Amino acid sequence: MRVLGVDPGLTRCGVGVVEGVPGRQCTLVAYYVIYTDPGDDLALRLLHLDRTLTDLVAEHQPRSVAVERVFSQHNVRTVMGTAQASAVAVLAGARAGLPVSTYTPSEVKAAITGSGQADKAQVTSMVTRLLKLDAPPRPADAADALALAICHIWRGGTRSKLEAAAARHRGSATASQHRGKR
Amino acid sequence: MRVLGVDPGLTRCGVGVVEGVPGRQCTLVAYYVIYTDPGDDLALRLLHLDRTLTDLVAEHQPRSVAVERVFSQHNVRTVMGTAQASAVAVLAGARAGLPVSTYTPSEVKAAITGSGQADKAQVTSMVTRLLKLDAPPRPADAADALALAICHIWRGGTRSKLEAAAARHRGSATASQHRGKR
Repeated sequence: MRVLGVDPGLTRCGVGVVEGVPGRQCTLVAYYVIYTDPGDDLALRLLHLDRTLTDLVAEHQPRSVAVERVFSQHNVRTVMGTAQASAVAVLAGARAGLPVSTYTPSEVKAAITGSGQADKAQVTSMVTRLLKLDAPPRPADAADALALAICHIWRGGTRSKLEAAAARHRGSATASQHRGKR
Repeated sequence: MRVLGVDPGLTRCGVGVVEGVPGRQCTLVAYYVIYTDPGDDLALRLLHLDRTLTDLVAEHQPRSVAVERVFSQHNVRTVMGTAQASAVAVLAGARAGLPVSTYTPSEVKAAITGSGQADKAQVTSMVTRLLKLDAPPRPADAADALALAICHIWRGGTRSKLEAAAARHRGSATASQHRGKR
């Protein structure tokens, strides 16, 4: 199965596409880093992120999307942009009708390196070995996105199927709407 | 000019549509509160918010969209959802090709009540008077969204025109993209 992983960020957003099945060798399909200019309007930045992610989903036709879960423990000033970028990523997958899973950074580290405390260099090194790459992916945001995709293939195959079934079951009856008009 | 104001929230998102020109009486067009179930998947919640906001923009054809700017001073646990909902709101306006402005809560309070320190009740009361409503809008999330729309009409008319011109000028040349493929 093909998975598109997203390491969300407003200034730099990593995207990794990986093909594989649980317990087997994964292969790299492609990776990207989407940049937006911190000097631009928020609307333009989110729009660029949305369009690029939507295009990448359409191009690679993944079976599911995996997005890093944003934590409030992060730097409070940067967490806002990360939360907004993650919303755009989750939405890009959901709008394409794909199941979207989120993983915490330590879930990803544990899946890839065996330790939830691993540092960025260890994750990059393992991603390079696991995908049999000649050199580490650069920039590092891409390595984190690839790690997310591998983590989802190994850990999430079953989970995403269950989630997709649950989502179909709940359908659109998830929210009511209050309406007032004069 | 018609403005669609959004008080972003993941569980309750207020939307207010107001018609008016700077310095003149504003009139209510409609208001809404979009609810999503905290027990649902994030993807479903963001998707419902996106679809409803996109539909409301299409239905009311506003000239511009005003969204409350999210602050990191907020409760850190709830700020993540608010940031994600604000991203969806900003994106809904931007995808429709509309200029999107953001205002801080104190800018809105100052524009509506004359004081940036005003409480929720004072804002609701002024919105009710300014729009000549028979009763305060309920729930209160709707009043905040209407206040945003009024604030934008009064303060932002000129600003949004400048922003729109700037956005057109910058066009899509806002971001580069790194691509790696094997």
